[in-house]
Amino acid sequence: MTDLLGKVAVIGLGSMGLGMAKTLVGAGWDVAGCDLSETARQQLREAGGQGFDTPALAAENCNTVISVVVNARQTEAVLFGENGVANVLQAGDVFVSCATMMAGDAQKMAARLLQQGVHYLDAPISGGAIKAASGDLSIMASGSPEAFAAADPALDVLAAKTYRLGDKVGTGASVKMINQLLAGVHIAAASEAMALAAKMDLDLETVYEVITGSAGNSWMFENRVPHILQGDYTPRSSVEIFVKDLGIVQDIARAERFPAPIAAAALQMYLASAGAGMGGDDDASVARLYAQISGAKLPARTDKAE
Amino acid sequence: MTDLLGKVAVIGLGSMGLGMAKTLVGAGWDVAGCDLSETARQQLREAGGQGFDTPALAAENCNTVISVVVNARQTEAVLFGENGVANVLQAGDVFVSCATMMAGDAQKMAARLLQQGVHYLDAPISGGAIKAASGDLSIMASGSPEAFAAADPALDVLAAKTYRLGDKVGTGASVKMINQLLAGVHIAAASEAMALAAKMDLDLETVYEVITGSAGNSWMFENRVPHILQGDYTPRSSVEIFVKDLGIVQDIARAERFPAPIAAAALQMYLASAGAGMGGDDDASVARLYAQISGAKLPARTDKAE
Repeated sequence: MTDLLGKVAVIGLGSMGLGMAKTLVGAGWDVAGCDLSETARQQLREAGGQGFDTPALAAENCNTVISVVVNARQTEAVLFGENGVANVLQAGDVFVSCATMMAGDAQKMAARLLQQGVHYLDAPISGGAIKAASGDLSIMASGSPEAFAAADPALDVLAAKTYRLGDKVGTGASVKMINQLLAGVHIAAASEAMALAAKMDLDLETVYEVITGSAGNSWMFENRVPHILQGDYTPRSSVEIFVKDLGIVQDIARAERFPAPIAAAALQMYLASAGAGMGGDDDASVARLYAQISGAKLPARTDKAE
Repeated sequence: MTDLLGKVAVIGLGSMGLGMAKTLVGAGWDVAGCDLSETARQQLREAGGQGFDTPALAAENCNTVISVVVNARQTEAVLFGENGVANVLQAGDVFVSCATMMAGDAQKMAARLLQQGVHYLDAPISGGAIKAASGDLSIMASGSPEAFAAADPALDVLAAKTYRLGDKVGTGASVKMINQLLAGVHIAAASEAMALAAKMDLDLETVYEVITGSAGNSWMFENRVPHILQGDYTPRSSVEIFVKDLGIVQDIARAERFPAPIAAAALQMYLASAGAGMGGDDDASVARLYAQISGAKLPARTDKAE
């Protein structure tokens, strides 16, 4: 596809948003990005897009706005803040919200937007920065048929798989939170297990080989433990992301009167890791926290001095 | 292989041991089994083996004894109890210990056995009853070269993969405990996640489809959640197994001065499930415990009335 397909705005040019914006440029879209960082805007310009410093400027003349910010509060500002996109969106346009948030927050924003005839697609994403840049994300989406119809051309470019979870805004958000509960627990459990293995003087490379071939394996164990083995804590996804996401899981669980002790224990370990100064480091740093509080010896850090 | 390869004893004819004994019979071995249950002994006789009611009787004239009991205490009784196999084993024979236990317990028994020239292979197994019956187990083994040499012909029949973890008895036991920490946490986390999804009124079949294709997946999520979806809590592996194994993980962690809060939280949920009467049910029953204490509605039970 090399024809110009239309104009799309991508709000938030972080590790996910910038990759998605570039993917859309590569597929022939006219892409207007927005970020507070001039560096991020410049990176998009060099890739062939435009860069703006307010959501409203980026969304001008766009039928599709994709919001790739981190939470409900930021999403609300993107939509309804002083220079929010709601000021410029027209009836029939679609707002695609990728942030992880509670279902109720998504529903409130969708209802408010629909008053002006603008569709809201609840579309949390999974897969990480590499898949964002290659157009291979998983998208967990729910919304009206009109919202899907308007968003589909862009989703087709961005996603290897779009799960169509029905017409109720909030279902996408809720399924994403179930995924984040598991992902967050599995990274923390992998950290607990590998640091205990180190404390027991087991050979960690061997443990990794055995576990990835055994019933104790998880997607996250397989993906994150190599960071520990290599001592490379360059943030692909940071500790703070799970402070946020497992925090939302706890908010949901409390509201539902649902006890979630395992996710709660995992959250404490992310909080401890952030509190100990690792908040901006890769989430496999939870293993370093376990090492600190137990005396376990992990492979030496290679991305920077300890 | 249809020739008789030698005589092997299998002590403990539960869901794992009986399958392993039958696999050895099928491969041409002369198999002498031992179990307290006449029913189990009779099942082995019908498959072409012999059945005895004491370890010593089964081990008579065997160069290889495979012990498939549940813990260190039972293993010690099999070896050194009144009718234990140590009474009949000869120098050069090998004792293959499959029970999950602490490394120190394995080391003590190995040292005592070596005084009479008998080798001890520390060989915990993974894979479940189906793989035991088909000769496709994973075995996490450590011990002397002599122990491996003596045990290898039987291991070749029983295992799809034997991890050779070095010559120190206890390494196999320790790596198995790392696997059990993860496996136990992952089943409990899967139960927490699916029951929360039910409480949020999400479609559970859809959640299973999305998670198994996303970063929240684990080997155990993929394997155990179908039991929840089908409402089938027939015990493939029971809640009590993880009460035991996560209990040993906590014992190890305490001895190592290693805090393991996530495994500790998971253990509490297995204890609660057992305390609520589900100890003998499938370990996916932890989801039923979450449903009980949260009001979540899971698919109706199909294996027996609630």
